Amino acid sequence: MYNNTVCAISTPYGSGGIAVIRVSGERSIMIVDQLFHGRKPLTEAKAYTVHYGEITRDNEVLDQVLVSVFRAPHSFTGEDIVEIACHGSLYIQQTLLQWLVDAGCQLAKAGEFTQRAFLNGKMDLTEAEAVADLIAAQSKAEKDLALTQLRGGISQELAKLRERLLTFTSLVELELDFADHEELEFADRSQLEELADEIDQKISNLTNSFKTGNAIKNGLPVAIIGAPNVGKSTLLNALLGEERAIVSDIQGTTRDTIEDTLVLGGMLFRFIDTAGMRQTEDTIENMGIERSRQAAQRATIIIHLIDATHPVDILGEIDNIDEKLVLTVYNKVDLMPSFSQTDDVVGISAKLGNIEVITDQLVAYASEQLNTHNAITISNTRHYESLSKALDAIHRVKDGLQMQISGEFLSMDLQDCLTALGEITGHITSQEVLNNIFSKFCIGK
Amino acid sequence: MYNNTVCAISTPYGSGGIAVIRVSGERSIMIVDQLFHGRKPLTEAKAYTVHYGEITRDNEVLDQVLVSVFRAPHSFTGEDIVEIACHGSLYIQQTLLQWLVDAGCQLAKAGEFTQRAFLNGKMDLTEAEAVADLIAAQSKAEKDLALTQLRGGISQELAKLRERLLTFTSLVELELDFADHEELEFADRSQLEELADEIDQKISNLTNSFKTGNAIKNGLPVAIIGAPNVGKSTLLNALLGEERAIVSDIQGTTRDTIEDTLVLGGMLFRFIDTAGMRQTEDTIENMGIERSRQAAQRATIIIHLIDATHPVDILGEIDNIDEKLVLTVYNKVDLMPSFSQTDDVVGISAKLGNIEVITDQLVAYASEQLNTHNAITISNTRHYESLSKALDAIHRVKDGLQMQISGEFLSMDLQDCLTALGEITGHITSQEVLNNIFSKFCIGK
Repeated sequence: MYNNTVCAISTPYGSGGIAVIRVSGERSIMIVDQLFHGRKPLTEAKAYTVHYGEITRDNEVLDQVLVSVFRAPHSFTGEDIVEIACHGSLYIQQTLLQWLVDAGCQLAKAGEFTQRAFLNGKMDLTEAEAVADLIAAQSKAEKDLALTQLRGGISQELAKLRERLLTFTSLVELELDFADHEELEFADRSQLEELADEIDQKISNLTNSFKTGNAIKNGLPVAIIGAPNVGKSTLLNALLGEERAIVSDIQGTTRDTIEDTLVLGGMLFRFIDTAGMRQTEDTIENMGIERSRQAAQRATIIIHLIDATHPVDILGEIDNIDEKLVLTVYNKVDLMPSFSQTDDVVGISAKLGNIEVITDQLVAYASEQLNTHNAITISNTRHYESLSKALDAIHRVKDGLQMQISGEFLSMDLQDCLTALGEITGHITSQEVLNNIFSKFCIGK
Repeated sequence: MYNNTVCAISTPYGSGGIAVIRVSGERSIMIVDQLFHGRKPLTEAKAYTVHYGEITRDNEVLDQVLVSVFRAPHSFTGEDIVEIACHGSLYIQQTLLQWLVDAGCQLAKAGEFTQRAFLNGKMDLTEAEAVADLIAAQSKAEKDLALTQLRGGISQELAKLRERLLTFTSLVELELDFADHEELEFADRSQLEELADEIDQKISNLTNSFKTGNAIKNGLPVAIIGAPNVGKSTLLNALLGEERAIVSDIQGTTRDTIEDTLVLGGMLFRFIDTAGMRQTEDTIENMGIERSRQAAQRATIIIHLIDATHPVDILGEIDNIDEKLVLTVYNKVDLMPSFSQTDDVVGISAKLGNIEVITDQLVAYASEQLNTHNAITISNTRHYESLSKALDAIHRVKDGLQMQISGEFLSMDLQDCLTALGEITGHITSQEVLNNIFSKFCIGK
């Protein structure tokens, strides 16, 4: 599909023990062989073997390297690949890249190796996207999500549905060719209705999983709210284990909302420290309080922090509170020897770092959220949008069947659904969509 | 020599396309095989082969990886090595490392792989040190230096001398066993004198090359000096291609010396911008001027910058000026249409970036310096110190021969020289020296 050969540094940027430069394309083995001097030519090397030698040009030795050879189609990209493991000096990495370009390679664009894998049929589009997600994974939940997708989880589910829908669509379209014979019905309408129900059900499950998938990827948003000086910033610092937010005894110390992420129990949380809620004339403080309200709005979980020594409840300030998980927590219990913990009255000391009761509850909630969803969870906005389109289309198909609309209109809605499903796996795609997807990759993958 | 198996991330720190985790030791193949699921067990894998599979534990899949297998003694460390190329997510890298530790590996210390290579006889100490230098290489000259050393350049030269000296020393010591027979002389004194001369010559060459080697490694120091406002900071910025130093029309803008490095013609230069030299009452400025003097003292090359519109020569302020290369350069020639360039009168416009005449001269000087030295240049302070000790000892040997001192004293000086030479290659070494050398390595190499 491609007739040029590309190269890139595939390991993280910087100097280190070793770095790996990947070369992929028809001429990759030949090009590297020009620079490589080992025991025998790379052109004679078997696939999946490693070779020790020196990279030289015009009598200048650049480095002693290990070279791995992979041959089409049994490689990541489906093309011939050579991976050169050199010493991890930036100078050596960059010079080797330059020598490869001088010898006939082009610099790979971001995600180009994975794009080649996709275009050579080694993986579908959701699997290719999963490669980027896997590299970006910060937590176990995120890694599991990406790996399920990379191993074909979503594709398989959608491909099966799509195939069955395609059969029906073909039958409906066949009817159109025999339009003179109105009585002809190749596609059994009741079976189609059943399939549409099934697709509706499965796609709804997937779109519903997006909220979880998105939370896994970007962190489950947890807003810490409360009156001024209840210890919200102290709690944030205690959770993060660092002095992230400025803490003082002065009311209104925090103005901007402060966000930071933390992995707890294999799940990414995004904590948002907010300005204390109170009536005030201070303009800047009021702007901060407005931001606190917005942060609480967007959060899935609210930690409602109360000073145990002066309890003030500010939950009334927040809209739609019943859609969220609210953990009401009493802080500063170290100052209240008489404080007694119950299942409903939870006490902590953020200052002393006694906050396990909060982290335990967060982890328990997150695990529950993860487990109530089916095995396949989607986390990609592009997938969500295409699935929503597919869902709309399948609803129109169902309505159409109900109203017994003509095969012509039915076929249009069926095609819309097929297109939307095909977009996800890349059966149907445009260069623009591809560019958009692969430009978000790092270079070298 | 080692009976534990160690692992480390060998690629640069961070997330990227791929990362490589290296495992070395007797049990490396067995340990990785516990986590790896490919087509066949790694224990059956041939050396120098690559295998695709999944890393799993307790039904959790961590990643899809490529694993390379090397078998003792044909590996970097001389032990069994497994290199795992995983997706470059930090989470995956760290989890894989944790799983390897759980499976019985220990975390490798800084430089431990190279230290094992040394202790297993795969390389001598100068070669091991060259690995760290190679990774740190920023320029062609530095890379060449490290690679010559890695390929045994210094070791071979010293090992040959040491071996010949050892033969003589043994003979001299044999004479001591026959002390009763004073007339016995197994070691031919005139031949020993010749060898001592040769060793003196070769070691002197090496110690003399240290100045060049050190400049290659740390950058050839170039001080930019001149009266205030001649454009020294502008020249520094023009050389570096960035706004490194603050530039203004106010005399005395630069107070602290500002240093930065730049590679020109494959050679690292360290430019030092200094405070303008003038008589002033300003205490801080005078402190700055004193620093300028010191910087000029330490520099190998001095760029003596003169404002072409108001020429002031301040070279008299600098001591030992005749030991240095001085480039006297007229700046601001863009303001002097009548300025005519000759071989002796060099004009530039730092403001307009017309400074090639300077960079050309610097590169020419550096190449000359590099080429006047013999093939082997030393750059390592430890080597320099041991060579100096060896040189002292060989001078004592020569003096002793001249004065016909007894074999007993001669043998002591010869032993000192042998020890000093042996320290360099690691024939003679202490755990302290080793720790000191390898602790400077990065982890994973």
